[in-house]
Amino acid sequence: VLEKKIAVLPGDGIGPEVCNEAVKVLKAVAEKYNHTFRFSYALMGACAIDETGSPLPPETLEACQEADAVLLGAIGDPKYDQNPHAKVRPEQGLLGLRKALGLYANLRPVVAYEKLLEHSPLKPERIAGTDILIFRELTGGTYFGEKGRTADTAFDTCTYSREEVARVAHLAFKAAASRHGILTLVDKANVLETSRLWREVVQEIAKQYPKVEVAYLFVDNAAMQLILNPRQFDVILTENMFGDILSDEASVIGGSIGLLPSASIGDGVALFEPIHGSFPQAKGKGIANPMAAILSAAMLLDYLNLAEEAKCVREVVQKAINSNILTQELNKKSPYTTEQVGSFIAYTI
Amino acid sequence: VLEKKIAVLPGDGIGPEVCNEAVKVLKAVAEKYNHTFRFSYALMGACAIDETGSPLPPETLEACQEADAVLLGAIGDPKYDQNPHAKVRPEQGLLGLRKALGLYANLRPVVAYEKLLEHSPLKPERIAGTDILIFRELTGGTYFGEKGRTADTAFDTCTYSREEVARVAHLAFKAAASRHGILTLVDKANVLETSRLWREVVQEIAKQYPKVEVAYLFVDNAAMQLILNPRQFDVILTENMFGDILSDEASVIGGSIGLLPSASIGDGVALFEPIHGSFPQAKGKGIANPMAAILSAAMLLDYLNLAEEAKCVREVVQKAINSNILTQELNKKSPYTTEQVGSFIAYTI
Ligand SMILES: CC(C)[C@H](C(=O)O)[C@@H](O)C(=O)O
Ligand SMILES: CC(C)[C@H](C(=O)O)[C@@H](O)C(=O)O
Repeated sequence: VLEKKIAVLPGDGIGPEVCNEAVKVLKAVAEKYNHTFRFSYALMGACAIDETGSPLPPETLEACQEADAVLLGAIGDPKYDQNPHAKVRPEQGLLGLRKALGLYANLRPVVAYEKLLEHSPLKPERIAGTDILIFRELTGGTYFGEKGRTADTAFDTCTYSREEVARVAHLAFKAAASRHGILTLVDKANVLETSRLWREVVQEIAKQYPKVEVAYLFVDNAAMQLILNPRQFDVILTENMFGDILSDEASVIGGSIGLLPSASIGDGVALFEPIHGSFPQAKGKGIANPMAAILSAAMLLDYLNLAEEAKCVREVVQKAINSNILTQELNKKSPYTTEQVGSFIAYTI
Repeated sequence: VLEKKIAVLPGDGIGPEVCNEAVKVLKAVAEKYNHTFRFSYALMGACAIDETGSPLPPETLEACQEADAVLLGAIGDPKYDQNPHAKVRPEQGLLGLRKALGLYANLRPVVAYEKLLEHSPLKPERIAGTDILIFRELTGGTYFGEKGRTADTAFDTCTYSREEVARVAHLAFKAAASRHGILTLVDKANVLETSRLWREVVQEIAKQYPKVEVAYLFVDNAAMQLILNPRQFDVILTENMFGDILSDEASVIGGSIGLLPSASIGDGVALFEPIHGSFPQAKGKGIANPMAAILSAAMLLDYLNLAEEAKCVREVVQKAINSNILTQELNKKSPYTTEQVGSFIAYTI
């Protein structure tokens, strides 16, 4: 039997609830395919601050480093957001973990499910068939550059090296080559030095992927095009902050951010998490959609080279969608709870 | 008779065409209301580089400084975009002018015209009644911070001072107080020091405007909310780069970026321009929508304290929309040319 260690970081808000369902599904997969998954739980985010004083306790980092993959719920708590003077923040845990694990590429697939088009704020004819894979650089840029404060001023520095751009660009080119062969670099090369470096490196690397067509879009234009005509995109490649904004923007296309998984990969162990946040208002109400967490678990299975298992999870999620086994945001009339959706998927595996 | 000097910078691509129509409308206003507007033309952008080697020749800056207001078409040329090594770029002209004139606040109104809802990529019931005023800080942040390159690395610095935040924040609070009383600050205070400074300053200033309700949104969430529920917004306040992205994103709501004007104001003379770009593919074809330029001229009239005249221009634009006197993007069946739309509006004034 194949044996894998999975570190689970439930986090804050609805994180624990959706993580529970994803773990339930992974257990069902293990049983069906006769694998052994060992789950180890650890604290990160606001819950870790409350418990230990640190958003990323050393035990948590160790648990992740020892695992074959990491599954994360969500982190964040509004009590830190209104206080610009807070010294310790939940987000430091997530950013610290990304950096410590070298997770330089964040993959965010955006798909418009036929059955759910009516829930999108966009007109169905504009979005049907949308299938985008966003590669967001995750350990560089303004998130990790030097930053500081005086009483009267503040600064944040965005820095990139050729190597930081190249490694994520290669992943994006490879993905584009295996998909529809179009890579769109999003930058602000008419203003930023870092964007001009991105463009330079991507132009060079493009020569090694002659079958991939490369398009260049300024970030302001990209923010329009994503809504005007999302089907024009196949793979989008961009730096950390632009990727944060554009991938959340793109999440509206499918009608629910509660459906969107992500994978963060790098040199070592990889991490999988829904792109939604900790949504504290929904905590404990059983209304959170666990599908983003469950689809993140499917990406985790792919990463462990369990392609058939991953496919099985995706098919069952699709079946749940087709059967309207959905939480209230997508099924107002006869909503299922978080737990019911997770159980349906786990038992159908 | 009232006499005003207006500097006109037609710029590149469709800039000259749409500027022509805006000037035509201003001339009609002058005639009707018995004012004298003196127009002086100057070069900026790619056309200025071609002609003089500089994107912002000293004569242009002088013409602007001597004027009571500046009307700009659009700047930019793709021949500079694909070359990360270009030393001179059209955008330097616009950025240089914003800085030289101290235009620290860029106002971008976003309105969904009832009659045009069908053209929006968004469902009409989501957007009907949208009326947002975006205040984008325009002379600080990563656009103007220190930037640099080595062979292998690049950096851009985002800096803000308390004073830079405060002056644009006061304008936004005043606007909110005279509108629906809601100001939303968009930042990334969970990651950026500059955002925490913005939040701190806005929290302080808020006390002086007790009737204005203040909301805080992270930029990634704001990029979603603008599409999910644009009616929740009244005034949005944000820093330079976030404002660039979000205002272009918001432009899709109304169904056409060709309708959206902007005003850039500061300590001295103010500048008015469409938010669309130079759209080189459309140049010379007579298909560009001149309404954004004409509505920018209306904002210019407001700025010159000619409120009645501004209102008249807006009413006539509304009349043109209601009568389907529209360029091809909004009227596929029987499109009017740029010139015809401009003339209809000018003659109806
Ligand atoms: C919580 C926050 C720091 C994080 C980010 O900005 O990267 C989140 O928005 C995300 O996209 O994963
Ligand atoms: C042309 C470019 C430099 C400019 C900007 O980014 O400010 C434009 O996109 C705008 O929004 O006015």
